[in-house]
Amino acid sequence: MTSQTPDVRICFVGDSFVAGAGDPQHLGWAGRLAAHSHTKGQPLTSYNLGVRRDTSSDVLTRWHTECTPRLPAGCRAGVVLSFGVNDTTLEGGTLRTAPDVSAANLHILLTQARSTAWPVLVAGPPAVDDEKQNERTAVVDVLFAQVCAQHQVPYVSVLPALRAHPLWRRQVREGDGAHPDDEGYQALTALLLPAWQTWYTTVRSGSSHP
Amino acid sequence: MTSQTPDVRICFVGDSFVAGAGDPQHLGWAGRLAAHSHTKGQPLTSYNLGVRRDTSSDVLTRWHTECTPRLPAGCRAGVVLSFGVNDTTLEGGTLRTAPDVSAANLHILLTQARSTAWPVLVAGPPAVDDEKQNERTAVVDVLFAQVCAQHQVPYVSVLPALRAHPLWRRQVREGDGAHPDDEGYQALTALLLPAWQTWYTTVRSGSSHP
Repeated sequence: MTSQTPDVRICFVGDSFVAGAGDPQHLGWAGRLAAHSHTKGQPLTSYNLGVRRDTSSDVLTRWHTECTPRLPAGCRAGVVLSFGVNDTTLEGGTLRTAPDVSAANLHILLTQARSTAWPVLVAGPPAVDDEKQNERTAVVDVLFAQVCAQHQVPYVSVLPALRAHPLWRRQVREGDGAHPDDEGYQALTALLLPAWQTWYTTVRSGSSHP
Repeated sequence: MTSQTPDVRICFVGDSFVAGAGDPQHLGWAGRLAAHSHTKGQPLTSYNLGVRRDTSSDVLTRWHTECTPRLPAGCRAGVVLSFGVNDTTLEGGTLRTAPDVSAANLHILLTQARSTAWPVLVAGPPAVDDEKQNERTAVVDVLFAQVCAQHQVPYVSVLPALRAHPLWRRQVREGDGAHPDDEGYQALTALLLPAWQTWYTTVRSGSSHP
């Protein structure tokens, strides 16, 4: 590799939306962001570490263990995080994770990340086909934005846009109630693209970490 | 989900070829196999657990830990494995992993897999732009086939076909010497497709495990 093509490796860690559940192309938004930069002449290695049903607590448990073998010293590494919808899911009438716990989990995670050489970008939780759950997720969305601001980590809120996005809402409704088809993932990718491009350019240049 | 659409989840575990390193589309052969079945009306959740530089020893260390949260009870789960090229790499004149150790690692891994509910498919290591290394990989390829036969696990050897595959060889040579571009991954996908389809159909039907 020449100095013009740095060895960039990005882990995308989170839930089923990160994994791209339901996407017949098996890219999700993570694969689409990586492919976008790659085909624009900024190649990277992407690792998708989204897991279905994962809450913020689940991600907190495994993120560092799974990223470590994938982001060795010497590469230009970064971590993109996204979770929250499973936190706000009711099971048997009980919330899986309370909003203050979700926020505390993200705070702990970003504190852990500060001790690594890995800059972080956080993508907010998307909308599902349940307005009551979307209301609960909106609370988490605001808390996540506050935690990220406190850590000086970029945060992209997508919930308001996706709640009002006809194609996203229709595909989620016609799907399993949570996940869209490929066009929905494309729409979410478009929402994340500007922040991704800014962040990725910094990671790639090697100047992102304090 | 209805009984017509079973909840199938497949982990693809291995090295950089599994991860799809160098593929501008960020699918690799794993994503292409999953997308093929998905778009043919047999949807699945795919988890790509390929890691660059991983030898059979590295995969043995992490495979079960990483598959466990991704393949919960109740889903129709399976594991596709592929490694070997990093085993046959020389570093400072020393082989990273001796062939008998590679074979022993696969044997241990398949023994561990037998105690799970996860059927396994093994894809052999591909060819790189170094005939001496390909000779060493050919030894491992034969050993892997023997271990898989002993465990009654399907094994797909791709090395002979890729050594003689002009497009694969050209893309690997013009790339980093190991990984092809997207057309090379497409060619490898085509080699794996028949065995994948047979195996995946069995996993999907829920009748694959003894």
